[in-house]
Amino acid sequence: MTASFNPPQRILMGPGPSDVSPRVLAAMARPTIGHLDPVFVSMMDELKGLLQYAFQTKNELTMPVSGPGSAGMETCFVNLVEPGDKVIVCQNGVFGGRMKENVERCGATPIMVMDDWGAAVDANKVEDALKANPGVKAVAFVHAETSTGAQSDAQAISALAHRYGALSLVDTVTSLGGSPLKVDEWGIDAIYSGSQKCLSCTPGLSPVSFSAQALEIIKNRKTKVQSWFMDLNLVMGYWGTGAKRAYHHTAPINALYGLHESLVILQEEGLENAWARHRQNHMALKAGIEAMGLSFVVKEQDRLPQLNSIYVPEGVDDAAVRRLLLEDYGLEIGAGLGAMAGKIWRIGLMGHASNMRNVLVCLGALEDVLSRLGASINKGVAVAAARKVYS
Amino acid sequence: MTASFNPPQRILMGPGPSDVSPRVLAAMARPTIGHLDPVFVSMMDELKGLLQYAFQTKNELTMPVSGPGSAGMETCFVNLVEPGDKVIVCQNGVFGGRMKENVERCGATPIMVMDDWGAAVDANKVEDALKANPGVKAVAFVHAETSTGAQSDAQAISALAHRYGALSLVDTVTSLGGSPLKVDEWGIDAIYSGSQKCLSCTPGLSPVSFSAQALEIIKNRKTKVQSWFMDLNLVMGYWGTGAKRAYHHTAPINALYGLHESLVILQEEGLENAWARHRQNHMALKAGIEAMGLSFVVKEQDRLPQLNSIYVPEGVDDAAVRRLLLEDYGLEIGAGLGAMAGKIWRIGLMGHASNMRNVLVCLGALEDVLSRLGASINKGVAVAAARKVYS
Repeated sequence: MTASFNPPQRILMGPGPSDVSPRVLAAMARPTIGHLDPVFVSMMDELKGLLQYAFQTKNELTMPVSGPGSAGMETCFVNLVEPGDKVIVCQNGVFGGRMKENVERCGATPIMVMDDWGAAVDANKVEDALKANPGVKAVAFVHAETSTGAQSDAQAISALAHRYGALSLVDTVTSLGGSPLKVDEWGIDAIYSGSQKCLSCTPGLSPVSFSAQALEIIKNRKTKVQSWFMDLNLVMGYWGTGAKRAYHHTAPINALYGLHESLVILQEEGLENAWARHRQNHMALKAGIEAMGLSFVVKEQDRLPQLNSIYVPEGVDDAAVRRLLLEDYGLEIGAGLGAMAGKIWRIGLMGHASNMRNVLVCLGALEDVLSRLGASINKGVAVAAARKVYS
Repeated sequence: MTASFNPPQRILMGPGPSDVSPRVLAAMARPTIGHLDPVFVSMMDELKGLLQYAFQTKNELTMPVSGPGSAGMETCFVNLVEPGDKVIVCQNGVFGGRMKENVERCGATPIMVMDDWGAAVDANKVEDALKANPGVKAVAFVHAETSTGAQSDAQAISALAHRYGALSLVDTVTSLGGSPLKVDEWGIDAIYSGSQKCLSCTPGLSPVSFSAQALEIIKNRKTKVQSWFMDLNLVMGYWGTGAKRAYHHTAPINALYGLHESLVILQEEGLENAWARHRQNHMALKAGIEAMGLSFVVKEQDRLPQLNSIYVPEGVDDAAVRRLLLEDYGLEIGAGLGAMAGKIWRIGLMGHASNMRNVLVCLGALEDVLSRLGASINKGVAVAAARKVYS
C-alpha cells in the first residue's frame, strides 16, 4: 500500500517554482465548486482584472491558460501563426529554442536571430532580420530568459516589430510580477507567463494576454487552430466577457483559487513595490556573492533581479553543492540548462521567496557548503556585505 | 481592491467536478517543492504505480498529463495520428464530436460511426466501418459518455479494432474509478481520463496510459508531433523510468499531490469496492427518481452508475430547478449539453460524492423544488424508496 505523501519544507531559490505563500496554499485547499457556478464565474472576472493589473494592460483577452508556461507559449503560437508564415525568433537561451520548435510545428518558417547565452537580444540584429525578410508575421522573443537570467528590451523590440508591420510575441514567464513589465505602454501583442515564478503560486497555470490587433488575427484565421484544447476562438466562449459562459474544458478550479490569491497579494503590495523589493534583494545577494569572490554570468545592465546566474567556481562539483544545500539546508537552487549545465547555478529571488531571510540564509549556506568542499572563496564576508544593502 | 476569494460549500452532483475529499484538499495545501527534487521524483514513481492500479494496467507509459481531460484527449490524438491517417470515430454524444475535431486538426480523416445520443456505441456499425475502410489507424470511442450517461462495451470494440489491425483509443474521463475498467484485459491501446470525476481530485490533470504497441508507434512517427507541450517523446524524458529526469515543463506540483492522495484513498478502499459503492448509490438514486415518476434517458443495460441522465418533466423550467437547488441547498446538478440542453439533467454520483447522504439529500431537494415549481410528481415516496436499497 502506498501512503499519503508528506513533502519536506524547502526554501525554493531555484528558477521556479518559488516558495508559495501560506495564503496561496490555504486558498488552494478551499472547497471545490463547479466551473459554471455563478460564484465561480464572478471569481473568474476578478481574476481577469487582477491579471490586467499585473500585466499593466486593458486587453480584454487576458486570462490564465489551464496548463503550465509551455502551454501558454504554445497557445500564443498556434493561435497567431498559420502554415506558411514567417516568424522571427530571437534565441539567447533555452526558451528561444522552444519558440523555434513551436513555429516549426505550426508549419511556419522561423527566422533565427541568435545571441550568446547570457546576453540580451540585440535589437540591431532584429532590425536587420526584419529588413531582410519583408512580410514577417511576428517577432518572438524572451523578455526574461529563465535559463540565463538575461533581460532584453521588450519595449524597443516590440516597437521595431510594429515599425515593420509585425506583431510582438513575448515570453515573460520569469518577469511578470518581479521586474518592470508594461504590456500596453510597450506595445506587446501577445504575451504569456507562468504562475510559479514571481507570482509565487504553484505551477500549472499560464497567464496570457492579447492586443486588439492580435485578437483580430485570431478571429480571422484562414485555417483552424491546430490545437482544439488551446483554440482561443473556443476558449473565449468560457473566459469571455458576457454573463453567459459556455463550457469548453473543465477549468482547474482550485489552482485558479491559488492564482487569484497570489494576485490579491500582489495588488496589496503594489506592483512598483514588488519590483523594488525584487531589486533590493538582488542587490543584497549580489553584494554577498561578489564579496565571496564568485561572479555573475550576465552583464550588470542586462541582469534580472529575480534570477541570478553565477559561475560555478573552477574545480567545484556543481551537483555536490546543490545536493548538500538541499540535504543540510532544505535549500533548492537551480542548475544550468543545456549548454550551461554544470557551469552555472541559477539562484532565484522570486515573489514570496524574494526576502532578506532567504538572501542571508542562501549566502551563509553557500559559504558553508563551498568551504566544506574545499573551494577557494573569501570567507566570513558575504552575509555582512548583504546586510549593508539593507541598512 | 479585490479581496480574497472564499467559495461557498457546495454538494457537487453534476457531471464533474465532484466533491473533493478533505484529505485531497489538505494534500494540495502541503508545501510546494521543486519538480526535480529527489523527494518529488519518488512521489512521481508512486503516482505512476497508483495510476497503473486504477487503470488495471502494467503499461510503463502511464502518467498524468499536466492539463484537463481535453488535453489528455489531444495528447492521445496528436501522438498517435499523423497527417493522412484514417481514424474511425464513434459518436454518441458531445465527446465523440470533440474526437472528430482532434482527428481533423491532426490532418487526418475521421470516419464517423454515429449512434443516437443516450445510446451505447453499436459494435456492429464499428465492424462495418472497419470492413469498409481497410488501413484504419485507430478506432476512437468514449467508454462513458459524460454528456448522456451511456456506457459502451470497451472490451468488444477494442477487440474489433485489433482484429482489423487498428489501435483502440478510449475516453474514460467519467469511468475511471467509478465503474469496471481493465486496460490490459480489455486490450486498450491509448486511454485518457480526468482527475475531477470518480477520482474526486480537483480538475486540471488527465491520467493517460499507452500500450507497448502504441508506444512503438509514437517512437517511430514519420512526422514530429504537432504539439511541443504534448509530445510524449519529450514528456517521457521527465516521466520516464530512469532515476534521471530531464526537465520538459514544470509539473503542476500541488495538483499532483492532490491526485496522489485521491489515488491513495482509492487504493485503501479497493477498486472493486469503489465500483460496488457507485453501483449501490446509483440503484438507490434510481429507486427514488423512478418513485417520483421521473425517467432515465439511457436504457437500463447501458446506464453508467456514476452519471444519471434524467428527463426534465414536461413544462418544467430546467434552469429554474438548477438555480433553486444551488441557492437553497448548495446542490449542483448538471444541465444537458448540445442537443440535450434544457431537456435533461445530469446527476453525478462520482467518487467522494457517491454516498448515501448525497442520494437522500438530492432526492429530497429535487422533490421540494419540483413541488414548489408546480411539477406533477409523486410526493413523499422518493427518499423512502432509496432508503430501501440501503436496508
